[in-house]
Amino acid sequence: MIPVEEAEQIIKTHWSNTKHEVIALESCAGRILAQSIHADRDYPPINRVMMDGIAISKQAYDHGLRKFIIVGMATAGTAPLNLENIETCIEVTTGCPLPDGADLVIPYEELSIHQGVAEIIIDQHRKAQDCVHPQGSDCRLGEVIIPSGTRLKGIHLGILASFGYTKVLVEKSPKIKVIATGDELIPIDQNPQPYQLRRSNVYALRASLLSYGYSDVEIDHIPDIPELILSHYQQNQQTYDLLIYSGGVSKGKRDYLPQIWQDTGVIPYIQGVRQKPGKPMWFGIDHQSNTIILGLPGNPISALVCLHRYLLNRSKSYGSLQKIITFEPDLTYFVPVKINAKHELMPIMPQNSGDFVALVDSDGFVELPQNKKQFTPQEQFSFYPWY
Amino acid sequence: MIPVEEAEQIIKTHWSNTKHEVIALESCAGRILAQSIHADRDYPPINRVMMDGIAISKQAYDHGLRKFIIVGMATAGTAPLNLENIETCIEVTTGCPLPDGADLVIPYEELSIHQGVAEIIIDQHRKAQDCVHPQGSDCRLGEVIIPSGTRLKGIHLGILASFGYTKVLVEKSPKIKVIATGDELIPIDQNPQPYQLRRSNVYALRASLLSYGYSDVEIDHIPDIPELILSHYQQNQQTYDLLIYSGGVSKGKRDYLPQIWQDTGVIPYIQGVRQKPGKPMWFGIDHQSNTIILGLPGNPISALVCLHRYLLNRSKSYGSLQKIITFEPDLTYFVPVKINAKHELMPIMPQNSGDFVALVDSDGFVELPQNKKQFTPQEQFSFYPWY
Repeated sequence: MIPVEEAEQIIKTHWSNTKHEVIALESCAGRILAQSIHADRDYPPINRVMMDGIAISKQAYDHGLRKFIIVGMATAGTAPLNLENIETCIEVTTGCPLPDGADLVIPYEELSIHQGVAEIIIDQHRKAQDCVHPQGSDCRLGEVIIPSGTRLKGIHLGILASFGYTKVLVEKSPKIKVIATGDELIPIDQNPQPYQLRRSNVYALRASLLSYGYSDVEIDHIPDIPELILSHYQQNQQTYDLLIYSGGVSKGKRDYLPQIWQDTGVIPYIQGVRQKPGKPMWFGIDHQSNTIILGLPGNPISALVCLHRYLLNRSKSYGSLQKIITFEPDLTYFVPVKINAKHELMPIMPQNSGDFVALVDSDGFVELPQNKKQFTPQEQFSFYPWY
Repeated sequence: MIPVEEAEQIIKTHWSNTKHEVIALESCAGRILAQSIHADRDYPPINRVMMDGIAISKQAYDHGLRKFIIVGMATAGTAPLNLENIETCIEVTTGCPLPDGADLVIPYEELSIHQGVAEIIIDQHRKAQDCVHPQGSDCRLGEVIIPSGTRLKGIHLGILASFGYTKVLVEKSPKIKVIATGDELIPIDQNPQPYQLRRSNVYALRASLLSYGYSDVEIDHIPDIPELILSHYQQNQQTYDLLIYSGGVSKGKRDYLPQIWQDTGVIPYIQGVRQKPGKPMWFGIDHQSNTIILGLPGNPISALVCLHRYLLNRSKSYGSLQKIITFEPDLTYFVPVKINAKHELMPIMPQNSGDFVALVDSDGFVELPQNKKQFTPQEQFSFYPWY
C-alpha cells in the first residue's frame, strides 16, 4: 500500500490525454485547451471611452477652458471622429473610440449642457486619459493569453470569441467505460430478490464523469466468472482509453480482477492505498493498447470517493470542520460532509461504506491527512465537491 | 437601486421552473428533480455480510465454541443459506446475505482454517451482528430519500438506480436566449476595424450557462436601433423562458432596452443594484408570455459576475482573502480572485470592468458586503466559482 499523495502523483503522471481534435467555439465549454491562445491585436484596439460625456483636449482644459461648443457625437462601432478645434468638444458614449485630437473625457455628471454648449460645472481636476481605457493596456498583439491545458470556462470563451477563434484545438474526450462486477447485481429495470441489488455504482460514477466534463462514458456489467472477465477485457482494451471497474479488486475469494489483469500483461502501479475508504484501489496500464485500468472498490461510497479524489479533483476548495474528528488508524481519512449555513463542513458518518443513502445530503468530502489522529475546527482541510 | 440581497431574493422568487419532463435515468446528471424519490424496499434489503470470513451462531460462540466445521459457502447474489447446526459454520463473502440461523461473522484474519474446520485464533469478544450490515439500517421501504428540487449528482443517480427508477421526472431545461446589443460588435468570423469588437459576451455567458447545466441556450445579436430591438423582442418573447441581454441597459444615450421593455408591458422588478460591477442590472417579467428578462451590463466582467451571482449561484463555498481590500463606496463589491496554493483568495483587480483579459487566471469572485469598508484575511467571505 502507498500513501494518498503517491497514488495521486502516479495517476496524474499516467492519466494524461494526448489525443486532440478541432471543434467549434460553441462546443468547447468545459473542454481542455490543446493550443496556446494569442491576442490577435492590442486590447483595447483603440483608446476606448469609458463614460458617456464629452471628449476634449487636455491642452485646452489646462489653459482654463471650461465651456466647449459641441461639434459632433461619437458612438460605439464607428471610426474615430477628429476634434479639429481644441476649443470645441465631441459628445462620446461608453465604448466608442476617443476622437483624434482629444485626450480627456468629462462625464455628463460633471457637465451642464445648454444650447449646444457643454460647461464643466463640477471640476474634478482631470488628468489626461481620465475615463479612457488606453489602447493595448489589457494586452498586446501576439501575447499568449490562455495557455494550453486550460479547462475552458465562460471567461475563456469570451476571450476566444474576441480574438476571432471560431475553431479551437482541444483534448479529445477520452473513451471511458465503467464496468460493474458482482453476481448480486441485476439491471435497474428488473425486480431484485432480497439478496440482489440493482447496478447503481456505474450510474453514479458515469454521472460524476459526465458532470465533470468527460462526454464519452459507457456502462457495462460482467459476472464474477474469470473466463468472462478475461474475454470482456480483451474485447474492450483496444476500444477504450480508460476502463473503470467497480468491485472485484479487494482481497476476497471472488476478487479475480487484479490477477486477470496482470496475467494479460497489465502493469500494476497502485495495488492498495493507505486510505479509508478505498483501501483496495487498483491502478494499472496496459502498455500495448495504452489502456488505463482503474479498479475501484465495489461499495458505493468508496467508489465515488476514489473517483473524485483521483480523477475529478479539479477544485481547490477547502474548509473548516464543524466539530473535532478523531481517527486512529494510520490512513488518510475521507469523510463525507455537508456544508452548513455557517460554511462549516459537517461530517456525515455513514454506518459503513455500503450505506450510500447517508450521502444523499452531502456536498462532497473532506480529506484528513494520515499523519495525525485528531482534526479540529481550527484547521483547514481540503474539500472535494461531488459533481 | 436595491441591495444585492434584495435582488437575489427577487430573482430567486421569480426564476423558478414549473415545466417538467420525464427523462431516462442515464440523462439526468445535473438536472433538477421534480418528484420525491422513495425507497423501494428496505436498505440493505437483507442482513448483509460486510467481511469475508465465517458466519456462526452467537449462541454457540457464547457457549465457548471456537472450532466450527465448514458446511457451506455463501456468495453474493444468491439466496441465504441455512445454518442448521449451530456447531457448524458457513463461509461468507462480502455482500452476501447472512445465512439464516447465523448472527455473527468472524473475519478470516481472526481464523485458522485446516481440513474443513475453521478455528477462531484471535478472539475479539464479538457481539451479535458484528460485521453485519442489518436489514433496513440505511433506510426503510417508502421513506423519502431524495426530495424534489435536488440537483442530481452522481450519488443521487446511484440511489435512483438502486431504487429502480429507470425514468425520472425533472424540471425541463428552460429555453434561454442570450442577446448581444451594440453596433460596435461584429460576428466572430469577421475581421474587426480598430473601433469594432467581436461579439464575445454571448459566448462567455452561454458557456457558463451550459456548464452550469442549462442545456437549451441560443445566442443572437441586435443592433442599437429601437424599432429593431422592439420587433426582435416581440418575435422572441413567446419562444423563450428567459431572455438575457448583454449591454444597452445603462443610463447612456443609446441604452434603449429598459424603456422598450416597459413600453411593451414588461414589469420591472430590478432597475439597478447597489453593487460594483453590475450597477445597471435590470430584471423584469412579461406576465403575458411569462418571459423573464435579465438585462446585464455590456462589459464582460460585469455581465459574467451578475450571471454567476444571480442565476448560477449553486455553490456555497467561501474563503479568506490573501490581503486586505479597502473599498469606500456604499456598494457590495465583487472582486475576481484566484485561489493560491495556500487556499487564499488572491484579488485580481482589473484596471476596469472592460479588461476581461485580466480574468483569464481567476477562479471566480468573492463578495465583499456593503456595510463595511475594509475586508481582512481574518474574515470569511462568500466565494462564487466560475463555471
